[in-house]
Amino acid sequence: MTRSGLRGVSRRRLLGWTGAGAALAGAGAVAGFAAGESAVDAPPDPSGGVVPFRGPHQAGIVTPAQDRLHFVALDLTTTDRRAVTSLLQRWTTAAERMAAGAEAAPGGAVNRNPEAPPSDTGEALGLPASALTITFGVGGSLLDKLGIPRPPELADLPPFQQDQLDPAFSGGDLCLQACANDPQVAVHAVRNLVRMGFGTTSVRWSQLGFGRTSSTSTAQQTHRNLFGFKDGTNNLKAEEGALLDEHVWVPPQQGPAWLTGGTYLVARRISMHVETWDRTSLAEQESLTGRTKGEGAPIGQAQEFDLPNLGPGSPIGADAHIRLASAQNNGGAKILRRGYNFVDGSDGLGHLNAGLFFVAFMRDPHRQFVPMQSQLARYDKMMEYIDHTGSAVFAVPPGLADGAFWGQSLLG
Amino acid sequence: MTRSGLRGVSRRRLLGWTGAGAALAGAGAVAGFAAGESAVDAPPDPSGGVVPFRGPHQAGIVTPAQDRLHFVALDLTTTDRRAVTSLLQRWTTAAERMAAGAEAAPGGAVNRNPEAPPSDTGEALGLPASALTITFGVGGSLLDKLGIPRPPELADLPPFQQDQLDPAFSGGDLCLQACANDPQVAVHAVRNLVRMGFGTTSVRWSQLGFGRTSSTSTAQQTHRNLFGFKDGTNNLKAEEGALLDEHVWVPPQQGPAWLTGGTYLVARRISMHVETWDRTSLAEQESLTGRTKGEGAPIGQAQEFDLPNLGPGSPIGADAHIRLASAQNNGGAKILRRGYNFVDGSDGLGHLNAGLFFVAFMRDPHRQFVPMQSQLARYDKMMEYIDHTGSAVFAVPPGLADGAFWGQSLLG
Repeated sequence: MTRSGLRGVSRRRLLGWTGAGAALAGAGAVAGFAAGESAVDAPPDPSGGVVPFRGPHQAGIVTPAQDRLHFVALDLTTTDRRAVTSLLQRWTTAAERMAAGAEAAPGGAVNRNPEAPPSDTGEALGLPASALTITFGVGGSLLDKLGIPRPPELADLPPFQQDQLDPAFSGGDLCLQACANDPQVAVHAVRNLVRMGFGTTSVRWSQLGFGRTSSTSTAQQTHRNLFGFKDGTNNLKAEEGALLDEHVWVPPQQGPAWLTGGTYLVARRISMHVETWDRTSLAEQESLTGRTKGEGAPIGQAQEFDLPNLGPGSPIGADAHIRLASAQNNGGAKILRRGYNFVDGSDGLGHLNAGLFFVAFMRDPHRQFVPMQSQLARYDKMMEYIDHTGSAVFAVPPGLADGAFWGQSLLG
Repeated sequence: MTRSGLRGVSRRRLLGWTGAGAALAGAGAVAGFAAGESAVDAPPDPSGGVVPFRGPHQAGIVTPAQDRLHFVALDLTTTDRRAVTSLLQRWTTAAERMAAGAEAAPGGAVNRNPEAPPSDTGEALGLPASALTITFGVGGSLLDKLGIPRPPELADLPPFQQDQLDPAFSGGDLCLQACANDPQVAVHAVRNLVRMGFGTTSVRWSQLGFGRTSSTSTAQQTHRNLFGFKDGTNNLKAEEGALLDEHVWVPPQQGPAWLTGGTYLVARRISMHVETWDRTSLAEQESLTGRTKGEGAPIGQAQEFDLPNLGPGSPIGADAHIRLASAQNNGGAKILRRGYNFVDGSDGLGHLNAGLFFVAFMRDPHRQFVPMQSQLARYDKMMEYIDHTGSAVFAVPPGLADGAFWGQSLLG
């Protein structure tokens, strides 16, 4: 079977079906375009179709986790609030277009004026939307630069024991998380937004990932991390609305107002010493994890989704990863994980540079992630096999109503 | 639609269908396994199914180009010929198993002795074969180390104008090219082979890629590189058997005997200054390339596969990329390209670290690649937008008959 046979809705065919091609050539056609160009009329698209861009929450959080990630952290190169606002407006328009499977801007890769640079870089021409989501966040340093008070939840993370953070892979004034079922589509989205940011932002760091390591829907199978274990079995799921309200979405009484209905994103780049892990016995691997390797069942249970016995007489060790990370061990705190595996070439010492790019969403990093990571950093024997080499926290504003733009609740 | 709905044949389900599970537990079952465990009995697998491992040529050359790549170059850490031969035997067994969708070794990720490390790292458990191919090559430096004469075709490449080669991204005693439609499957294959090589080999460099930039079959659509142009339109195709014999496969009269039916692999890591490119006008981009951006037609023609007019009065410039790289400009020489796009994070200077990992197969790098690259390095204006940062050449032995192992024609 050819790859093209897998691909249903291409950017160009999508335009053909809906007849929106002509409208797209004109500026200002985006609102109508966004409404008219859903995949409703299109045949089923195994790449994942179109994920709605607007709604009460940003896409890319509880929407089903796609298979590929391109995450970028950017720094402002200006403190001109109008310039930042203008960029966020233009970014929003472009992101909404790309999420619908269109090019970043009218005219696209083959604009009508050949003496101008194309308004889209072109590498996603002919590819379907591939369930692209682009999620936007702001770091505490952006608020500092623009003279906006930081909510206490956005305070810098404390140092954790054994942290090996590389400043070049940490922090950032802004983040864009692009997820899709085709890496070329995710890369295209990030690249075009980065391009639009020239003069206002520059790339601080970026990370590609594959093989999502957490399900965000009960309809998804649990994938495996590069230790070979299912990861994210006990994750919060989109279907658990009340738990999401309790653990993920910022409620009105928490504030600030611009973040109500939003969330916080914690990113940790975790290098895994896979070679050392691979020399460890199966029994030790399972004991460290607290789950069986094959089925992914909690030790002492039979099935992946059986509840772990963490009470008296539990077969799960005091320092097992799933016990230390459990809500029971962390005052009931849960987080929504949405991480990805990575391999970034090799380390120059004869090993692959592999690991997990941990991404999690929560309403308060300091009440949810920090206690959990403090426990893990101190007691988790798995720490012998990993290094946290990057770290960042971003506030992720709520979703957008029609006509609204990213950051409007903050800067508008 | 969930991802799991896309995945047909899982490793475990495959075993269940064929009833080969019990046989797999015993050593020496591999030959029967390889024959019995093709996907013949399985329902259609949109991931690409199983590509046969054995045959007159290695898989991963003219077999349809998959969407993802993990390429690794390794160095010997020993000159003990028996140790190298033993590793190649074990690698062959493992590679054949993984190409069939099985784990790297009997026992797999969940071996029966929990006090032993698992014989497979486990992260591909439950994933289908995904058209995995693993292609094996040897560098001239391996022959030097083992006291085997280098064929003249395997002489080091000459330096080219404007080369910016990083020794850490160049050369290597051995290479493994893993291609699959799921990056987790390609990474799993490389990782398990690297793991088996400890004590005999160590990783020199590795590269992940996505969005194949060349078709190797007339049934495949042409993909786009990160300059946004279709790449590989005029590539050699699997259907062109006589041309492959002329340009790709080493004939008996060329020698050496151990390489008859094999080929040579040239790898070039090409960094692309995408930000500069993106500021260039559409007309300039098309003029530099010699093709239109949208359709990919040669300048002056209407359709992608129309033949370019390179004769008198041609609208294609003297320094256009497709003219300089054409067979007409290089004494009739053609190569089989099989490259991939890459984005390796960011460059620390505010830009994405993006490019093309060029892989091409040919019967003589010095008569095919070297003249072509000399022309391009000297005259191609596209060189202003790219840097060649890595380079390697490997001899790729022929395919394996039943029972044969990688390198047997060389060392056996």
